[in-house]
Amino acid sequence: MIKMIAFVKKKPHLSREEFIHLWTVEHTRLSKILGMKGYRINIALQPQPGPTADAAPNVPPYDGTAEIWWESLEHMQAALASPENLIAAADTERFCEVLQFVFTEEFVVI
Amino acid sequence: MIKMIAFVKKKPHLSREEFIHLWTVEHTRLSKILGMKGYRINIALQPQPGPTADAAPNVPPYDGTAEIWWESLEHMQAALASPENLIAAADTERFCEVLQFVFTEEFVVI
Repeated sequence: MIKMIAFVKKKPHLSREEFIHLWTVEHTRLSKILGMKGYRINIALQPQPGPTADAAPNVPPYDGTAEIWWESLEHMQAALASPENLIAAADTERFCEVLQFVFTEEFVVI
Repeated sequence: MIKMIAFVKKKPHLSREEFIHLWTVEHTRLSKILGMKGYRINIALQPQPGPTADAAPNVPPYDGTAEIWWESLEHMQAALASPENLIAAADTERFCEVLQFVFTEEFVVI
C-alpha cells in the first residue's frame, strides 16, 4: 500500500461551501475512477476551534487535506500517468490555490 | 466526529528510522490514551517517488502527518486540556521541528 496525502489551500474567492462542493462532489466524480483503494477528504472547520475550550482559534496552514491510497507504488504511478488523471489534475485548478503532496507509508495506531 | 490533522517536519538530526520509532512507538504510548476513536500516522517515503514513473522525485512540505479523531469537538478539547496531554505534547519536542494542526470534518469518497 502507498498513501498519498494532498495539502490544499482553496482559491481565495471561494466560500467554504463552494470549495466543499467543487472538491467533494464535482472533483471526486473525475478522480475516483483512478483505481484507488481508499479516498478521504478532510476540510477545515470554519471558524477553526481552539485545541482546548479556552484557547485561541487555531490557524491552520491548509484549508484541507486528502488521503488517497493504492495497492502499490506501481498502481499509483500508473493511475497518475493515465489520461483520466490529466482531466482530474486540470480540474484542481478550479478550487486549489496551493496543492502539494507527500507520498507515505501508513502506521495504524488505533 | 471531529478529525485533527497534524503536520510534522522532523528534527533535522534524526534519521527516518529514529523519527519513526520516536513517533509511532514511543510517542503513541503517551498519546493514545486520550480517548480518540482513531489514530493513524503517515510517514514520508524516503526517497520520495515521483507521481509517475518518469517524473522527478516529489518535494513534500512535511515529513509526515497524523490523523486523529474524536466523537465530538467537546471530547477533543477535553482530551487536549488533560494532564495526560501535557506530557504527550511535551514529548513531541523530541522529534518535531514543526508541528501544525487543522481541525476538520471528514468526507469519505471511497
